[in-house]
Amino acid sequence: MNIPDLKLPRIVVIGGGFAGISFIKKLQKEPVQIVLFDRHNYHTFQPLLYQVSTAGLEPDSIAYPLRKIFRKNKNFHFKLAKVNRVDAEDKIIRTDIGSLSYDYLIIATGTRTNYFGNKSIEANSMPMKTISQALDIRSLMLQNIEAADRTEDPEKRRACLNFVIAGAGPTGVELAGALAEFRKGILMRDYPNLVENEMKVHLVEGGSRVLSPMSETASRNAQKSLQKLGVEVHLNTLVTNYDGYTVETRDGKKFKTMTFIWAAGVTGAPVQGLKAEEVLVAGNRFKVDRFNKIEGFDHIYALGDVAYMETPVYPKGHPQVAQPAIQQGRNLGENFKRMFRNKPLKEFKYYDKGTMATIGRNKAVVDVKKLSFGGAIAWFMWMFVHLWYLVGFRNRVITFFNWTYNYINYDRAARLIIRPFRRSS
Amino acid sequence: MNIPDLKLPRIVVIGGGFAGISFIKKLQKEPVQIVLFDRHNYHTFQPLLYQVSTAGLEPDSIAYPLRKIFRKNKNFHFKLAKVNRVDAEDKIIRTDIGSLSYDYLIIATGTRTNYFGNKSIEANSMPMKTISQALDIRSLMLQNIEAADRTEDPEKRRACLNFVIAGAGPTGVELAGALAEFRKGILMRDYPNLVENEMKVHLVEGGSRVLSPMSETASRNAQKSLQKLGVEVHLNTLVTNYDGYTVETRDGKKFKTMTFIWAAGVTGAPVQGLKAEEVLVAGNRFKVDRFNKIEGFDHIYALGDVAYMETPVYPKGHPQVAQPAIQQGRNLGENFKRMFRNKPLKEFKYYDKGTMATIGRNKAVVDVKKLSFGGAIAWFMWMFVHLWYLVGFRNRVITFFNWTYNYINYDRAARLIIRPFRRSS
Repeated sequence: MNIPDLKLPRIVVIGGGFAGISFIKKLQKEPVQIVLFDRHNYHTFQPLLYQVSTAGLEPDSIAYPLRKIFRKNKNFHFKLAKVNRVDAEDKIIRTDIGSLSYDYLIIATGTRTNYFGNKSIEANSMPMKTISQALDIRSLMLQNIEAADRTEDPEKRRACLNFVIAGAGPTGVELAGALAEFRKGILMRDYPNLVENEMKVHLVEGGSRVLSPMSETASRNAQKSLQKLGVEVHLNTLVTNYDGYTVETRDGKKFKTMTFIWAAGVTGAPVQGLKAEEVLVAGNRFKVDRFNKIEGFDHIYALGDVAYMETPVYPKGHPQVAQPAIQQGRNLGENFKRMFRNKPLKEFKYYDKGTMATIGRNKAVVDVKKLSFGGAIAWFMWMFVHLWYLVGFRNRVITFFNWTYNYINYDRAARLIIRPFRRSS
Repeated sequence: MNIPDLKLPRIVVIGGGFAGISFIKKLQKEPVQIVLFDRHNYHTFQPLLYQVSTAGLEPDSIAYPLRKIFRKNKNFHFKLAKVNRVDAEDKIIRTDIGSLSYDYLIIATGTRTNYFGNKSIEANSMPMKTISQALDIRSLMLQNIEAADRTEDPEKRRACLNFVIAGAGPTGVELAGALAEFRKGILMRDYPNLVENEMKVHLVEGGSRVLSPMSETASRNAQKSLQKLGVEVHLNTLVTNYDGYTVETRDGKKFKTMTFIWAAGVTGAPVQGLKAEEVLVAGNRFKVDRFNKIEGFDHIYALGDVAYMETPVYPKGHPQVAQPAIQQGRNLGENFKRMFRNKPLKEFKYYDKGTMATIGRNKAVVDVKKLSFGGAIAWFMWMFVHLWYLVGFRNRVITFFNWTYNYINYDRAARLIIRPFRRSS
């Protein structure tokens, strides 16, 4: 695959998400060769995916070319490829573009959508883990509103205007809020045939509160904000089936909908080849020690969402969000530097900067330390933090301008059906 | 299809391009019902499509939601649908979402790519008439550069880095220039394995000069600028075959390439149903009188690229570009107003504001009246005019920011392979 042999330690990184790029950034000036594999040629800022889905932002605002991040590093190589398996004994990875030996292997492959084995949901619902899936949701949502506008069949019209989201984690909550705002800002003004409250947004959650990883105060505030926006929140409600038309729940509820978004779970996306029974724990995550080394393997590390590390403060592992991934990437990068200098390594310690979620215009919730607050201040903090973490000056400016424009005009400029979504069945 | 019957004259417009929207804009305050059909829910600013292809702009910069343009007009209806045929006797159009009667029918369906009956070119080349085709070109271009970066086979590498464009009209010229700038600004910095002059851009033209609709001075200037940028211009060279790997020309040239873009011709995209032998002239355009009425039909009009009108100054019809379309739309709109007021109608008279094309950074050519000039002034004029004609304040700001950013940084931020292009064969 055309990687020069440099007689330098070769570090192979699989996955250009938060963990992978934070790790590589720390090693840019080290005498190592770094080869990054990803199936996309860009880094995705996943926390803002829902804004691509709801026509607020275009992909180039939340995606950043991976080659560009590290273009100043002459010993960095990017390969657009899918890694099929690891051969740990020979220290080789097998990909769809050939094999490559490594000295150190960093697995930062993140998670994928978890359907919990439910085939009907997997076949018919819309997941939202990649930009292309987010664009599919955007197209489908707009196509269904167009279909509602032209049909004279009241039942079809209702199904087209019914939006059901499963899972009230940050993704589900933010998506539900954005859809409710779309209804308010766009539906009434663009579609003279439609009436605002004909469009319904249902948020269906198996647990007993929204945003369960956050504080109870945040959950309460978020739920109140959602309901104020007109989102119908159904707690303790487990979805059991979706045939493409009717969502069924365990307690017998039925929602007729043409748009069912599945944000109810993720599971690790580990690389194959390391014996599963030895290294994978619940949630398909690699069990790692305090230095992110996969237990039982030398030279193989896991970072971020796909890593499972027990610490005194987090005896059940860290939350699968951006911050632990970024911090683990940095810590491992620093540890590699220490290792090359024969210095003692540092255990990973997660510094919890807080959690936040936005619900809509002037509405967000923030937990920091023991504090929990909501409202406009939380919303400004949310915006500031997300702009701050976006990669690249340009993406920040474009996103900031779009947010300002959308805020002033109650608009979503990217409501474009560029590629109509067609179910592949 | 859920269109209210208002006892107002119903004007059905097919196509939301320059002609269609200019026409409707003139009638917003008239007591008429307007129904616009388009296969997309947005207006496309076609002159900047090539910037979407070459990763300079995202779709939302050059597309504008059609519903939004006319949202203040309560008697305006948009339908996302494909019009299959016209039944002129009964004054009905047949679409994939049902039939609708009209009092007046405006056909503004534009053109589609013309392969001149060549099946191999149609099957294997990349056309660029829609945003989704432009995104395909972007993906394919980036995929092929990635493939070149990883292959160790020198012949495959050459084919991946060879870009061939057929047709040196404005589209072909602008695309060739943008690809050459991509090579200069991105290739060398993002791809340490590749050498700048390994990437070749060939512009192949059947005629004897580039930009043949412009002045000879403009052609000369444009060709010089292209060559300075490293584009290889092949004049008097007709492409006869492309099997997906080798472009063959009538004079025996062969170009091995994985990316062959077809910008060598368009033909009218008329609506079916009006007897072809009576109304269509060469180039599949509807023969119209000086009021854009299709000859032989009452109440049916054609506008823009799909209309063919002979005038003393333009005895062979008007050029198929934005300005005649915009001006015809406006004139017809004004004539409808006059008609409703029993005033005499005005013949269409094309006011030629000039022609322009950009080649790259600080390089453009402009013909105005008898004047022809190039260089940085022409380039600034080109930018100003294109920003001016973009629909919407937001799209202008986003485009302007992206251009400024790209100019300063020699960058193309949207070099993202969101949906990999796969040949459907």
